[in-house]
Amino acid sequence: MKLPLSTEWVLHCATALAQLEPHTAVSTAQFAEHYDIPAPYLAKQLKALVKAGVLSAAPGPRGGFRLARAPEAITLLEIVEAVDGSAAPYECHEIRQRGRGALAPEECRRTCVLAVRMAEAHDAWRRSLAAVSLADVVADIPPDAPARTRALLAGS
Amino acid sequence: MKLPLSTEWVLHCATALAQLEPHTAVSTAQFAEHYDIPAPYLAKQLKALVKAGVLSAAPGPRGGFRLARAPEAITLLEIVEAVDGSAAPYECHEIRQRGRGALAPEECRRTCVLAVRMAEAHDAWRRSLAAVSLADVVADIPPDAPARTRALLAGS
Repeated sequence: MKLPLSTEWVLHCATALAQLEPHTAVSTAQFAEHYDIPAPYLAKQLKALVKAGVLSAAPGPRGGFRLARAPEAITLLEIVEAVDGSAAPYECHEIRQRGRGALAPEECRRTCVLAVRMAEAHDAWRRSLAAVSLADVVADIPPDAPARTRALLAGS
Repeated sequence: MKLPLSTEWVLHCATALAQLEPHTAVSTAQFAEHYDIPAPYLAKQLKALVKAGVLSAAPGPRGGFRLARAPEAITLLEIVEAVDGSAAPYECHEIRQRGRGALAPEECRRTCVLAVRMAEAHDAWRRSLAAVSLADVVADIPPDAPARTRALLAGS
């Protein structure tokens, strides 16, 4: 059970945007240089965040990506699921209805209890990430970080 | 973020054992037939459960696998982590210390706040699965299932 490597990238890019003045756009090239990550693959991930409604694309020579909403209104869950999807890690293939031990269809009207319990765990994971906004994250970063982030990403 | 397909297999095999008289052993071939799953790959997963202390191997012609402890004392988390490991899905590669925007080492004595929040979500997932025992699962399966499981798996 692994999240893509790019999960860390997009979480940090979104956190950086949350430290800037509202509506400030940052380009893929700026992000790639800021975190030393490969620009072409990062661009694809940032576009996934636009598709998910977390970022919006700003056109033009000073364009790039900006937050689509206020940092208080964007959760870590939205960012993570933008790059990894929202599918649960456990897949039920109804093996309770297969083989010599197969249950009868009338015994399987309710969801398999194991699938229910695995889904409850995934819900707990999702609730945990849905309870944390980008504003919460920025409130916990080192105190000098936002000023430097603004100087480096919004000053050029 | 995906759990292996075999997660469903081992959860069902362990749930079947929890329906039998204590210490009853079931062979890989019996499980494979019971759920219509490929025996060679299943054998590998059942050995992982032995290694994790969830099952114990019973030697001999009537041998196979039995629960290593009472169903009340085996959690879904142990079973899932026996086949998938206990590594968290999110990996922090400290990109906050890389590139042009790198934070100074003295600003990074505490764990990155994003890594902390992702770890909290994984803890919530683990706690949810650790709170469910095989006995809890058996209490929720269709009422006629245990008698048939016993007839099919312990009667041969």
